[in-house]
Amino acid sequence: MAAQNHQKFLSAKESEPINFGWMQGFPPEKDKVLHTWDGSFFEFPAIRWSVVHMREMLPTQNVSRGLNAPSELPYKLDKNIDSLTFLPWNSKTPMTWEKSLWENYTDGMIILHKGNVVYERYFSELTDCDVHAVMSLTKSFTGSLASILAAEGILDPNKLVTFYVPELKNSAYGDATVRQVMDMTTALKYSEDYADPNADIWEFSAAGNPLPKPKGYDGPNGYYEYLQTVKKQGTHGEAFGYKTVNADALGWIISKASGKSVSDLLSEKIWRKLGMEQDAYYQVDGLGTPFAGGGFNAGLRDLARFGELIRNQGKFNGQQIFPAEAVKDIEKGGSKEAFAKSGHPELKGWSYRNMWWMTENKDGAFAARGVHGQTIYIDPKAEMVIVRLASHPIAGNAANDPTSLPAYQAVADYLMKK
Amino acid sequence: MAAQNHQKFLSAKESEPINFGWMQGFPPEKDKVLHTWDGSFFEFPAIRWSVVHMREMLPTQNVSRGLNAPSELPYKLDKNIDSLTFLPWNSKTPMTWEKSLWENYTDGMIILHKGNVVYERYFSELTDCDVHAVMSLTKSFTGSLASILAAEGILDPNKLVTFYVPELKNSAYGDATVRQVMDMTTALKYSEDYADPNADIWEFSAAGNPLPKPKGYDGPNGYYEYLQTVKKQGTHGEAFGYKTVNADALGWIISKASGKSVSDLLSEKIWRKLGMEQDAYYQVDGLGTPFAGGGFNAGLRDLARFGELIRNQGKFNGQQIFPAEAVKDIEKGGSKEAFAKSGHPELKGWSYRNMWWMTENKDGAFAARGVHGQTIYIDPKAEMVIVRLASHPIAGNAANDPTSLPAYQAVADYLMKK
Repeated sequence: MAAQNHQKFLSAKESEPINFGWMQGFPPEKDKVLHTWDGSFFEFPAIRWSVVHMREMLPTQNVSRGLNAPSELPYKLDKNIDSLTFLPWNSKTPMTWEKSLWENYTDGMIILHKGNVVYERYFSELTDCDVHAVMSLTKSFTGSLASILAAEGILDPNKLVTFYVPELKNSAYGDATVRQVMDMTTALKYSEDYADPNADIWEFSAAGNPLPKPKGYDGPNGYYEYLQTVKKQGTHGEAFGYKTVNADALGWIISKASGKSVSDLLSEKIWRKLGMEQDAYYQVDGLGTPFAGGGFNAGLRDLARFGELIRNQGKFNGQQIFPAEAVKDIEKGGSKEAFAKSGHPELKGWSYRNMWWMTENKDGAFAARGVHGQTIYIDPKAEMVIVRLASHPIAGNAANDPTSLPAYQAVADYLMKK
Repeated sequence: MAAQNHQKFLSAKESEPINFGWMQGFPPEKDKVLHTWDGSFFEFPAIRWSVVHMREMLPTQNVSRGLNAPSELPYKLDKNIDSLTFLPWNSKTPMTWEKSLWENYTDGMIILHKGNVVYERYFSELTDCDVHAVMSLTKSFTGSLASILAAEGILDPNKLVTFYVPELKNSAYGDATVRQVMDMTTALKYSEDYADPNADIWEFSAAGNPLPKPKGYDGPNGYYEYLQTVKKQGTHGEAFGYKTVNADALGWIISKASGKSVSDLLSEKIWRKLGMEQDAYYQVDGLGTPFAGGGFNAGLRDLARFGELIRNQGKFNGQQIFPAEAVKDIEKGGSKEAFAKSGHPELKGWSYRNMWWMTENKDGAFAARGVHGQTIYIDPKAEMVIVRLASHPIAGNAANDPTSLPAYQAVADYLMKK
């Protein structure tokens, strides 16, 4: 099915921004101007430009790296990786690693093995001096921050959400625990079906849009007001339901618990401590609230540093950045039973914990995942971290998983044999 | 008059953002939310918060520092500076340097002497990990880039504007030279009187506003379209007239001449070459055009590095970053006669060259200047560079010059005697 879908779209090479000239020239041609308010910036192939330029169209909050020199990422590039082959799901024709990158509209790919960069490539609009929108990868940052605060004793996952955010008392979150939010087992009357024009996600987006509200708009203003309108449907704790609002609720919870914005928290706990190369940023709503469910933007190597930090349970360059317990709690995994009820048949046997996707495979791999192909994929057994940034024409990762997940396993298997 | 004006406003200490909580809290209180579209973000005292947070309310373009370690700024702090005294203009009561900082709502102050930091302080909302809006200081960056391109042979100041930007043929710029734009001696029917609601500056601002145009708006879209509507009044080359549009016309000219956006040019020619500590950014219009007349934001120490680069005629840390001729051409100064016609009686004997303000004083000092008190003040004879970032309640620098310019001279005189 993915293959059929692909046929509708220009190829990765054909769709490169350089072939279109989005927002290029002085001034750009009229039909090459992209805006957030008409949706043009997020349509394929324009999205291939936009993922590297979100701040040029939207207000954003800085995540400071501090002022120190960047930390060294040692290189041991391995030229064999490009020609590694794997079987895509539902296919009998082997594919090379290199081909999979084009197949998946990859903008940036880095592989770390035992902390060394063994593979790194940039495509399309991305360079190593740019940041890229990471979409729902953002959620794993929110979840990791919650996990860190819990390990530090600042946040108690067993408490009710309302202990930290009393404003959510009359919403679906009124009787949910922080743990249920972290694992997305809240029972919400909330549809995130992007294909449905009546889905709740659109009201959520309207609330979070930083532009002035249109005349006559009487809906909620900002993510926090929206969250207060979410209604309950079912019983908390029984089923995994992947809903972006949970990440924004968690963002609110950790801000209330710590007294800091999500941007400042991420800067303080991680970005300033790893010798990041570039500042990162969050998109914000009209009240300055960072979009904790999907608004983060960062550089490829810095995301790899973060992945390496998680793989090493909070240790980086010989220093324990936060309590190891924060990652151990992620690695415990979530309930497979709850996950099985979620309607992700292609991710059989997986679970979800602290806003990370747990493959529950033989290597104990787990991942941060965002639409259009973003991932941080951590394979503890192979001592491997993969970060891919991408701008696949199809939002859902079901379109790229068949040529991604088996490819990652092929690299892991290769690295383990080295 | 400045003193009388001051009495209307809260003091520097009283007006610190920490006393108001602008955009603080989860969520911020309703009357503490600031927006660009209702002007609230730029009203005093809210402006004291906004100058450090422009990107959180506006789309912006990054000016990358690259990825290298920051260059060292050597420190030789001098504790005597705070107690230096000077006579404010039209006053017989001496004032200390330290008091002048509070008097002028200073957010950041740094003094370099022979390349060493001899004084550095942060106030109010600014820290050394923040960037600050520099307002019309931006123009001196635009002018410096033009001067660099001229020294490199990429731009010919003697050519007509239309050689580079044919789109300006039917505007006031149709028969102006690039040199006249660089020195602001174009004759424009254009009022920049912020107190006049019918002044052209408002139409210019509306064109450059990155928000969607209001329903029924049929004016120009973006800075470039606006510039094409500017009409001529008088004869080019006769009088200095300080008009922001000239800096945006120059931004257009240097982009056309180089094939690069002003943001990319500044990054390539300067920001990546000095070992800056922080990325900087430009505010942009709705077409992604950087606001070359006033939209730049940067960190205090990085602005000092730039000032030091100019003071040393393009040399920094022993390396010639661009041809010395680029600065020599600035130091020539402009026409004092043309300047005298401009209605700046308080800046008697000054001139204007390549978008720098030339004091023409005994030290050959010259400055970049922006409303609300921004300055880079370079005193070649004293081997001194001062950068002040501020959020003075009164936009015009006439309000702070009486307690700034003589203070700078007092420090210069002191340093020369050391």
